[in-house]
Amino acid sequence: MTTKKIGKQTVALANPPSIIGHANVVGKKEGDGPLADSFDFVNADDTFGEKSWEKSESAMQKLALTNALNKAGQSASKMDYIFAGDLLNQCIASAFAMRGQEIPFFGLYGACSTMAEGLSLAAMLLDGGFGEFTAALTSSHFCSAERQYRSPLECGTQRTPTAQWTVTGSGALILAREGEGPYVTHITTGKIVDKGIKDASNMGAAMAPSAYDTIKTHLEDTNRSPSYYDLIITGDLGTLGEEIVKEFFHKDGMDLNHFGDCGSLIYNHGKQDTHCGGSGCGCSAVVLSGYLLNGMRAGRWKNILFCGTGALLSPVSTQQGESIPAISHAVAISTQK
Amino acid sequence: MTTKKIGKQTVALANPPSIIGHANVVGKKEGDGPLADSFDFVNADDTFGEKSWEKSESAMQKLALTNALNKAGQSASKMDYIFAGDLLNQCIASAFAMRGQEIPFFGLYGACSTMAEGLSLAAMLLDGGFGEFTAALTSSHFCSAERQYRSPLECGTQRTPTAQWTVTGSGALILAREGEGPYVTHITTGKIVDKGIKDASNMGAAMAPSAYDTIKTHLEDTNRSPSYYDLIITGDLGTLGEEIVKEFFHKDGMDLNHFGDCGSLIYNHGKQDTHCGGSGCGCSAVVLSGYLLNGMRAGRWKNILFCGTGALLSPVSTQQGESIPAISHAVAISTQK
Repeated sequence: MTTKKIGKQTVALANPPSIIGHANVVGKKEGDGPLADSFDFVNADDTFGEKSWEKSESAMQKLALTNALNKAGQSASKMDYIFAGDLLNQCIASAFAMRGQEIPFFGLYGACSTMAEGLSLAAMLLDGGFGEFTAALTSSHFCSAERQYRSPLECGTQRTPTAQWTVTGSGALILAREGEGPYVTHITTGKIVDKGIKDASNMGAAMAPSAYDTIKTHLEDTNRSPSYYDLIITGDLGTLGEEIVKEFFHKDGMDLNHFGDCGSLIYNHGKQDTHCGGSGCGCSAVVLSGYLLNGMRAGRWKNILFCGTGALLSPVSTQQGESIPAISHAVAISTQK
Repeated sequence: MTTKKIGKQTVALANPPSIIGHANVVGKKEGDGPLADSFDFVNADDTFGEKSWEKSESAMQKLALTNALNKAGQSASKMDYIFAGDLLNQCIASAFAMRGQEIPFFGLYGACSTMAEGLSLAAMLLDGGFGEFTAALTSSHFCSAERQYRSPLECGTQRTPTAQWTVTGSGALILAREGEGPYVTHITTGKIVDKGIKDASNMGAAMAPSAYDTIKTHLEDTNRSPSYYDLIITGDLGTLGEEIVKEFFHKDGMDLNHFGDCGSLIYNHGKQDTHCGGSGCGCSAVVLSGYLLNGMRAGRWKNILFCGTGALLSPVSTQQGESIPAISHAVAISTQK
């Protein structure tokens, strides 16, 4: 068997798996935003009926997974593997959501790139012949993230202009070896890129060089121009990070005409006071599992390059004066095999 | 192409990848223990020349990886993928160790099961044709784990009789599509098992039911008896957890005659005051990458079932009164394809 590797960091899947189901749940603020129509469930008070924000996050994951399985017409017991992760210390939102699911489980930590990471591995295991069905699942919650990474909400700490707003939401994808499109056709796995940014309130700038690196590598590896894609979309660079990536490509003499960012799309910047936009594991997950995949099904886009972006810092690394390592994984999704 | 899945949760690899290099580094206490001869590098003061315990952990990972690459006769630039994880919040030991390595990186969180999880995915990606070389890497550090999970060392907090001692160490494995044995032949991916244990100082009891579940499923899926293996070894159940697993199998009328636990083996219980033995991501990693794989190469064992064990709790989940979800992944390693 020959390798599926093309170029430096990309694989071309031999039998592109099908995304047979996708669903999401979000909180109130996301439900008030411009992508409201693409969310399957909006919770009015962000608690999802639970007593702690961490438990709310697990509840969101369970709801998103159940919904995605329903849409796919499958049961949890049919899943050969699930890949899940979140931003909480020790990824407890995922571990606790997986209790009682009876699905072989691989836990991931890729910060906000986790949906792209999970989708990559879920697709590769199917293409490699290791099963019939896989799932990818992530979540984030504004309230659990704020108290863990920054300060308790009760403090009312002021946010800097470059800050982003952690999305309250969870997205789930169900993949199958056989089925109709959209299909996962190519995967470009990212390397750590760290250009020395130390400001934990400026994730966009910290992650932009890594998104640029992965997208550029993907285009070189596949010998495609940006215009091959109807949309190249990053996970949660926000408005500032998005501009930086465009600028990098512009300097290369390559203009990204169909480029966007899930974090820039999810809120109404003028009205929702989210500064640079959305972030968090849930951000790219809910936009992919709603707006993007619904749009592909509706014929709006044929070829998308989905590039999850993650900032691999922690409060401890920030306190110890470390800069922020970032990683981005790109997944090419197409309505055709 | 037919699926490689056999039974409920197991895959039989079509072209078992070779483990072409393995190396480890440990701290002083581990170097004073009964497995001293199997460690490649023992640091005298556990700092590994760094100013914080978190940075020491990253330094250990880099050292273990470099050493394993050297033994494999390969360079980092040849690695198609690396899977790495650790116990620190946001897995910073791994993310920071990966800076400058230029290897496509998948971050994992599987608590102390991470080496088995990484080895599983590293082997599957090779068997699936996604590259020529992959690596798996994990670490833990007693001092960074104590202050994060329990209390700062300066408090001198007394430990309960069921407590285990987090291993200071890192282990790295280099896998290749082609090469000599030992080979990874079968993988059984675990599901979450939570039997309601809430005592964060009794990991052995929390993880034992999950180890039992995965090992039993592996034996059923492969239609093998325990005696097929020269050694069935768990990651870090410690002496209490090890006894619980033996008892479960005994009740099934199945006696595990060649059974052990990395956590029980790594320290001298009479003399080193570690209570129930070793634990942590580094525990099974340093025992696998030294004592076990060296022993296979020396002809001591032909077939090993390596079962990493993880307790997916966090200080927050314990404070919120949650029980401890556990997961175990089993990897069959053989000197023959």
